[in-house]
Formats: sequence, structure tokens, C-alpha cells
Amino acid sequence: MEKENKRPLILVTNDDGYYAGGFKALIEIAKSFGDVVAVAPEVGNSGMSHAITIKVPIRLRLLDKTEGLALYACSGTPADCIKLAINQVLDRKPDLVLSGVNHGSNSSISLIYSGTMAGAIEGCLNGIDSVGLSLLDFARDANFQASVVYGKRIVSEVLRNGLPKGTCLNVNIPEGNVDEIKGVKVCRQNKGRWVEEFEKRTDPRGSNYFWLTGYYCNDEPESTDTDEAALNNKYVSIVPVKVDLSDYVMINTLNGWNLNESN
Amino acid sequence: MEKENKRPLILVTNDDGYYAGGFKALIEIAKSFGDVVAVAPEVGNSGMSHAITIKVPIRLRLLDKTEGLALYACSGTPADCIKLAINQVLDRKPDLVLSGVNHGSNSSISLIYSGTMAGAIEGCLNGIDSVGLSLLDFARDANFQASVVYGKRIVSEVLRNGLPKGTCLNVNIPEGNVDEIKGVKVCRQNKGRWVEEFEKRTDPRGSNYFWLTGYYCNDEPESTDTDEAALNNKYVSIVPVKVDLSDYVMINTLNGWNLNESN
Repeated sequence: MEKENKRPLILVTNDDGYYAGGFKALIEIAKSFGDVVAVAPEVGNSGMSHAITIKVPIRLRLLDKTEGLALYACSGTPADCIKLAINQVLDRKPDLVLSGVNHGSNSSISLIYSGTMAGAIEGCLNGIDSVGLSLLDFARDANFQASVVYGKRIVSEVLRNGLPKGTCLNVNIPEGNVDEIKGVKVCRQNKGRWVEEFEKRTDPRGSNYFWLTGYYCNDEPESTDTDEAALNNKYVSIVPVKVDLSDYVMINTLNGWNLNESN
Repeated sequence: MEKENKRPLILVTNDDGYYAGGFKALIEIAKSFGDVVAVAPEVGNSGMSHAITIKVPIRLRLLDKTEGLALYACSGTPADCIKLAINQVLDRKPDLVLSGVNHGSNSSISLIYSGTMAGAIEGCLNGIDSVGLSLLDFARDANFQASVVYGKRIVSEVLRNGLPKGTCLNVNIPEGNVDEIKGVKVCRQNKGRWVEEFEKRTDPRGSNYFWLTGYYCNDEPESTDTDEAALNNKYVSIVPVKVDLSDYVMINTLNGWNLNESN
């Protein structure tokens, strides 16, 4: 028992694959607070959302084990990584789950498509304080300096204060060095959506196929209390995210509908 | 214009594949209200959540076109199906998106893993009234009689009243015939989680692999106002689902944290 209380046990994952620069940054953040078990996808899982692997079996590969860090690659999704780590890798429930640092934003509605945030939400569902982190830079060689500085500050506060059951944090970090970032803002999720513009092509055999492309449409560009607004103003955004999606206001409205008589 | 106003245009999808019995039931529901465009996955996409296909191109195949119904198979996920239908198949924004009828429950936390509900949520993100329907029976030859009856009643009320922007409906239907079902209950999402029990096996070459298994753990078995409680008492459950996941209570708490000073 005394060993358990010495250093926090931190489970980390991501959705860009174990080799991603952002994952190395995340491990650096985590190692400064505790012992780290890292279970990340073998390959990129961007856009996999909260998918779980049920049609094929899942493989797990130990890549490295050094003082304070065990690193595994998993054939599954970020949600699978957290599930498999808790059930098969860890000998006790971790004190914290971190996911990221994603190469690219997960603000606003991107949260719903995000494999990174699925990793954090899966930790949260298992009753563990969980944080997802994303940098607004898709580049393979993106600069994670500010992510490490702000990531450490936020993780320190999470470990000190704890999070309520059923809520995790979605942290997004603007591009640039630390001195370009103005600070941290606690926000709500911006209302917006991806507008799709599929690109239609014809393959060498004459059949059509489509590539998903699109752009983000901000449905409330004038708002100042959202993650989009904070990021546009060079603040790190933190949105507390609930796993209970019930619309409590709408429950009352629906109770006034004519649902219990035939038409 | 006059043609557009004649009958509602209803876009339908599912996550079990276009050939599923539950999809035929959904088309039956939809056809009783309007013209139907059906775009569903080529193969089962259970557990795919809100995943989108970005690494490989997407294929679309017209299967059938009759009076009031066009049926397509799509190589992508349920979210892809809705995106592609809106962008490439439909000549106007549909009046309604329906997803399902899923073979198996999507109550409580299963909502987060559900490809069926991702189809409905994707419709909702595009500003379209959307409903996901699921039957508590995994069987290929499940009995969708009650799903059709209650599905029609609920869809009729959605078309009559409309849904607020950013909210869709998660409908779950108990097993059994209509006369075994007591009615409809508007509910909140039950608090619960899947407890994983991975099954470890060894392949013929001596390497280990894992199958995801597990059971549902109800974290509030005494509650009476949740979808789980309604379903256990043989009521159809309707949970209004928000796409804004912000925890507004926690925003205030986080504003009291020490996030803007270095440690």
C-alpha cells in the first residue's frame, strides 16, 4: 500500500500512434508527476471517435520498459487502448488518464469525432480523472513546447483538485511558443459543424469514389466564452466535458408531447 | 417548390448494414411519412461510434430505386453515410434523419459507442431533426413489430412539433410484441458503464491476442427516471441527446482553479 501512495500512476494514450511527437510530449508531461504506462495505437486513429474493436481481435506489443515508463503499442483504437490497459496491463486503477497531445485541434464539435477525446472520455467512464490535450498544429514536426508547459500546469491542478465523476477536460493549445500564448481560459464548447465537400474521383477501372474533405463552420463567431474564441485570441482553452448527454430542458418539453396515445 | 412541400424527404441510415431486418423496419416507418433516401453501410458498423473515414476513399452503390425510395450502400460508417447523402445524393436538405432500427440496445452509456446514434447525431449537427431507434434484441431475425408501431408514433410527433437545434432523440424499444409494451417514457441517460473482461487467446503461431467482452454495470439501479429503468419496466425510452457536451456547472468550478499562474 505504501508503494501505491508514493507516486501517481498515470495511463496515457493518443490517436496519432505511439511514435507521434505529441505522444512524446505527453509522456514528458506525465513523467514529471508519476509512473507512466503508455498504451497507444500502432497506427494513426484520427477521426475514429469512440469506436471500439469487436470484429477482429486486438494485439498488444510491449515496446519499451524503463524506470517509470512502460510503453505498449495496441492494434486497436484509443478507447480500446484504455480498456485493454485497465483490464490487462495495469495492476491497479490509475490515478489519471491523459490522451494526446493530438496533432490538430479538437475544439468545438471536433470533440465528437476525436479519437484523442475518446481516450479521455473512456478514462472518465472508468471513474478516473481524465484530460485530453490537442495542439492546433497538424504538422508531424509540430512544436509542443507550449503544450508541455501548459499541460503540466493543468495536470498539476487536476491532481490537486480532482474532477467530478462523469466529467473530463478537453484542452486545446494554440500554435506557437509559450511567450505567444496569453494564458488559460475555461470555456464552453463552441457551436459549429464541419461542412462536407466530398471530392469525387474516378479510379483506373472507371468506378467513382469519394474523399471526405470539408471546412469548419463557426455558428457563433461573435461569442467570447467558447473554446474557439479563446483559441482565436491565443489562449489555451479548457472545456469540461460531460459523459451524460441528456438534454434536461428538452425532457420537460417532450413530456408535453402526445407520445402515449395512438395517432 | 410545390413538389418540395408535398411530402417530407426522409434520410435513413443504420449501423448494421443495409440488409439488416431493422433497416427494413425503419424504411417501413419512414415510407409512411414521406419520400425516403436510404444510405446505409455495406457491412456491419456496430461499435463504430462517430468514426469518419479519412484514410481510404468512400464508395457509394445504388442498390434500388422505386417510387418513394432510393436505396444506396456506402463503404463508410453511419456518420459517413449521412455526410455523403447530404453532400452528394440529396438535391435538398432532408426534413428528417432516422437511424436504426438497431439490433441491440443503445441505452445509457452505449449511446457513446453507438454507430446508430452517430447517424442521428450527424443529422442533428447538420440542422436536421434526427432520431435514432434501437430494439433490445441482437438477433438477426428480431421482431420489429413494436419498433414500427412506436417508431411511427414518435416520428409523427417529431414531424409535428420539431426538435430544438442541437438536440436529437435516442429511442430504445423493449423486446416483445406491442401488447407487451406499456407505453413511452421520456427519460434521462442512465449512469453506467461497460466493465471489460478481455478474453486472452494464443494464435497458432504462439502470439497472444484479445477479444473485447464485458458486461453492463448499472451505477444507479434504484433510479426510476432513466432509460434503463423505463426499459426494465417494458416502456419505450426516449432520451433527448445534446451535441453540446459542455459541463456548465464545472465551468464555474474550474474558474476557481489556479490555472493562470505557474506552479
